Amino acid sequence: MLQKKVSDSATTFTEIVMPNDTNPMHNLMGGNLLKWMDIACGICGSKHANRIVVTAAVDNVSFNRPIKIGDIVTIHAQVTRAFNTSMEIYVEVSKENFRSHERVKCNEAFYTFVALDDDGRPVASPELVPENDEEQSRYDSALRRRELRLILSGRMKPEEAKELKAIFLAD
Amino acid sequence: MLQKKVSDSATTFTEIVMPNDTNPMHNLMGGNLLKWMDIACGICGSKHANRIVVTAAVDNVSFNRPIKIGDIVTIHAQVTRAFNTSMEIYVEVSKENFRSHERVKCNEAFYTFVALDDDGRPVASPELVPENDEEQSRYDSALRRRELRLILSGRMKPEEAKELKAIFLAD
Amino acid sequence: MLQKKVSDSATTFTEIVMPNDTNPMHNLMGGNLLKWMDIACGICGSKHANRIVVTAAVDNVSFNRPIKIGDIVTIHAQVTRAFNTSMEIYVEVSKENFRSHERVKCNEAFYTFVALDDDGRPVASPELVPENDEEQSRYDSALRRRELRLILSGRMKPEEAKELKAIFLAD
Amino acid sequence: MLQKKVSDSATTFTEIVMPNDTNPMHNLMGGNLLKWMDIACGICGSKHANRIVVTAAVDNVSFNRPIKIGDIVTIHAQVTRAFNTSMEIYVEVSKENFRSHERVKCNEAFYTFVALDDDGRPVASPELVPENDEEQSRYDSALRRRELRLILSGRMKPEEAKELKAIFLAD
Amino acid sequence: MLQKKVSDSATTFTEIVMPNDTNPMHNLMGGNLLKWMDIACGICGSKHANRIVVTAAVDNVSFNRPIKIGDIVTIHAQVTRAFNTSMEIYVEVSKENFRSHERVKCNEAFYTFVALDDDGRPVASPELVPENDEEQSRYDSALRRRELRLILSGRMKPEEAKELKAIFLAD
Amino acid sequence: MLQKKVSDSATTFTEIVMPNDTNPMHNLMGGNLLKWMDIACGICGSKHANRIVVTAAVDNVSFNRPIKIGDIVTIHAQVTRAFNTSMEIYVEVSKENFRSHERVKCNEAFYTFVALDDDGRPVASPELVPENDEEQSRYDSALRRRELRLILSGRMKPEEAKELKAIFLAD
Repeated sequence: MLQKKVSDSATTFTEIVMPNDTNPMHNLMGGNLLKWMDIACGICGSKHANRIVVTAAVDNVSFNRPIKIGDIVTIHAQVTRAFNTSMEIYVEVSKENFRSHERVKCNEAFYTFVALDDDGRPVASPELVPENDEEQSRYDSALRRRELRLILSGRMKPEEAKELKAIFLAD
Repeated sequence: MLQKKVSDSATTFTEIVMPNDTNPMHNLMGGNLLKWMDIACGICGSKHANRIVVTAAVDNVSFNRPIKIGDIVTIHAQVTRAFNTSMEIYVEVSKENFRSHERVKCNEAFYTFVALDDDGRPVASPELVPENDEEQSRYDSALRRRELRLILSGRMKPEEAKELKAIFLAD
Repeated sequence: MLQKKVSDSATTFTEIVMPNDTNPMHNLMGGNLLKWMDIACGICGSKHANRIVVTAAVDNVSFNRPIKIGDIVTIHAQVTRAFNTSMEIYVEVSKENFRSHERVKCNEAFYTFVALDDDGRPVASPELVPENDEEQSRYDSALRRRELRLILSGRMKPEEAKELKAIFLAD
Repeated sequence: MLQKKVSDSATTFTEIVMPNDTNPMHNLMGGNLLKWMDIACGICGSKHANRIVVTAAVDNVSFNRPIKIGDIVTIHAQVTRAFNTSMEIYVEVSKENFRSHERVKCNEAFYTFVALDDDGRPVASPELVPENDEEQSRYDSALRRRELRLILSGRMKPEEAKELKAIFLAD
Repeated sequence: MLQKKVSDSATTFTEIVMPNDTNPMHNLMGGNLLKWMDIACGICGSKHANRIVVTAAVDNVSFNRPIKIGDIVTIHAQVTRAFNTSMEIYVEVSKENFRSHERVKCNEAFYTFVALDDDGRPVASPELVPENDEEQSRYDSALRRRELRLILSGRMKPEEAKELKAIFLAD
Repeated sequence: MLQKKVSDSATTFTEIVMPNDTNPMHNLMGGNLLKWMDIACGICGSKHANRIVVTAAVDNVSFNRPIKIGDIVTIHAQVTRAFNTSMEIYVEVSKENFRSHERVKCNEAFYTFVALDDDGRPVASPELVPENDEEQSRYDSALRRRELRLILSGRMKPEEAKELKAIFLAD
């Protein structure tokens, strides 16, 4: 089984917020950011798998900091863990203003992608080998997020979610 | 406090999948669908609130059924419940092929929007009054989804989530 | 011969007017509206015919009410009558402002589409069966509009246009 | 009253048909052509009036010759006549294949534009002075087309349309 | 060997500067102009060669005059000389404001295109025959620009560039 | 005078080649690449200057390696030297196929940008301090490229170009 590192497929994606990307408050529309995050994750996933990859899921995403027209949006995507035929990808969004150029973190999310063979059938991706504490931590917690995803899409019963259950029973 | 019905703001949005919307398998890219769903929900939310609205969150979305180039995508959005300054909006995606024109349900999701006043400050939206069993059911379960959102964005501790906890302790 | 109802293919299409859609008065450019109407009618026509359809003609369209940036444009298309290999489609455009959300009718037009087989040859479409007075009225007047179209494109001599002639000789 | 010639504002507009401009037969969608024609006429009209101009109407347009992906579309627009606050603009569409480069005429149409002052109120445009037989012929027939437009938009009764009536009573 | 005139392939291309084409000073972004010039030259080159053509090089382009949002940009492209498998194309950009409609020249540049056969292999293009002094002058100086291109792309040593050398040794 | 390092503003920009970005050989159109390079350089320049920046010039660019539809294009831009009111920016383009993911260098170019104050007047940018041999080498050769740019845009006579002249007289 092929093994790969996070850095083998980490991807940086940059956009400037243009007029047609905004809502009437002149801020970036949430839907455009969701699309850009998906593209960044897709590039990252296809680098990891050396395959066509397609979006299987996106986890809960919150939008707390408005991103203004003219801001530079940098999206960084990296694989956190490869499961049987799916990969979880962590994506972090930051914004910079062209004057201050302080980079402020705005969003983070987890996307799940599936690698496909040439006939469109899901295939296994290389194993991900974490190399530092942060990567290891995301690798470990990926199991918990996967349980939540399976419950939310109705493919696992809540009571079977061992990892998650522990959290709700913590106190 | 103003009250509104689901039908006052329900919104239908139609798109055809064009070449630039697709991935290399000639299927609609997940990110484009997320964007279209966001636009449909934004129109729906602004109809409900008669205000500018901005995306606050999108819950977990799964992509199980590929949507092909040329397919007609119909997105139907409706408010499920209005909280203090946020609204939850349910969005359902179906696809039709131009030959068969059987409509197949592909995705569903919950987006959260916040209504803003002219200075960009969050303001309360009209109360939503459910009128049938399906609307009532989504209205009731909105509380549970809200708890999950607050936990996932780190603004509520899991042990405080009464509605959710009940599910994990069900067995 | 297959028969279909208006409701079998009626199509709703929604757009928000974005900066790139406007002219220097910040109103929707007429050409963009013509394009959106064409897409809505094309979806409607392909639903009726279960075929690829292509635009054959658009009748006179007037633009009397400016549509502002940020306005929500709702386009409703429905088949009025199927001729031998063509279908006439009625399209109605309304606009809403995100504050008032009063829906105001802006435009209406008749597009003609032709259904094609897989080799690109025109084929007959299902017959349209009107079900109420309004549908019957549009069904009946479709003959007159067809005569005008044939005259204007040089395929019928004015003196052969029985339906039209009656109008000009009315007094 | 300012006078202008056709050549003062004649406008040529060129596009290549790209994948996203096409229908599933890989031909240019009618709606895209309507939009391009509108843009070409708008440029032409603003050159004639030295004002912002907005689309007031488009007459019947027929689509008889499919335009293929990769074809070069040349759109030529010229003012035919200025009325009180409106101008009629004739637009002719031709296509060329990059191999043969024979130019084939595909469509023609008449658009009507209105010039606006800075407050958005209609203003008179310069008078058009035809300089050859073809320009004179289009200048003369503009009256007849205007009557038809007024009838079709409900602002003139058919029996008042002197120019048109003559045609239907010709035999 | 087929011969062609400049006028056989001269191409005019028109665009209006829209919000998404601009930088934060509301002027046309240089990159968009480079793209539009490339498209105009590509159409011109394919008309000359009756082949698919691809961009091989663009020479130094300066941007001295800002082009404002709403300005009409006219791009005129014409072949200056055909070499073995490449063609040099001269492109001139002018802008007009919709009020003044004075046409001001903004940029000029030389693009090089290569014609390809159906397997993507470079093929010879028709010879260009200049017909007036201006065309002859650009035809002659094309050799000098070609030397510079070859030097700048590392395919010719500066000391071999006879035409260019003469310039630097002029005094 | 403020000093900045190359790494303070180095920018990575990623795109996937979509159908509408390609020519009829299904390769990325040169004009699109020129646009993407301009955007990457513009972001880089505005990071260096903390100002709005506009394109002043692009030097000769060669296109030797076709980039296919679906390829991932990575564009890396970095400032090489700041002159009085202009900055030279080096941009390098590489492509990867989603299967092989070998990164192949395709193009390189030098763009020149000018920083503007809020009234649109050129202002001085921070000095660039090279930190390694490669950066020093590009810093030194920037003078030579500047001379060539001034000659090519007619603002310097060839015989005044000391740096360039040395090259042509080398043998």
